[in-house]
Amino acid sequence: MQGTNTEWSEVEQQVAKAAFQIAYDRETSALIHTVCEEATSATKVEDIWKLHDFLSAKRHDIDGKYDYSYAALIFVFARLVQEKWISLDDLSGLEPDKIAKVSALARM
Amino acid sequence: MQGTNTEWSEVEQQVAKAAFQIAYDRETSALIHTVCEEATSATKVEDIWKLHDFLSAKRHDIDGKYDYSYAALIFVFARLVQEKWISLDDLSGLEPDKIAKVSALARM
Repeated sequence: MQGTNTEWSEVEQQVAKAAFQIAYDRETSALIHTVCEEATSATKVEDIWKLHDFLSAKRHDIDGKYDYSYAALIFVFARLVQEKWISLDDLSGLEPDKIAKVSALARM
Repeated sequence: MQGTNTEWSEVEQQVAKAAFQIAYDRETSALIHTVCEEATSATKVEDIWKLHDFLSAKRHDIDGKYDYSYAALIFVFARLVQEKWISLDDLSGLEPDKIAKVSALARM
């Protein structure tokens, strides 16, 4: 659910939404690529069940991760930076304090 | 779980196991082929979630269907004939009465 927060200016909200979308597009594109590779190299049904298990976990992970809420956004961005779906440069335009928090959390 | 039944002779048990394996191999090979086609034609993440839903249903279906038990085997074979994973010819060697039952059930 998309929340609002007075701590995020209009400009920051635009930056945040763009960075969020960039991460989502990159991660889902990578997923499509991986699924395609795994499927084309499958030779037995166990490979297909393994792919199914992988997709179940990935779907749960992606559904949970990409919940756009301003209350959680610093943590979400920290995770996305840590997983290299975005860089701190993609957050350029946010207040320095927010970028510092994301950066510190991403290094944990 | 593999049960035993005195109504199935040794020869019939061999025929049944072979037919069961043929159906399983055909259905799982077809599944691998379908998954490969769907994955390579996926362009957006929604296509991947659709594939995941399909695999969830298919896995449930296959896990339930291929339960080798002599008590249920007539019904299992009827379904496999109906779905065209085996033909009545694959059951050649079973008692005529059993083949007639499978044939009648498969036409329902």
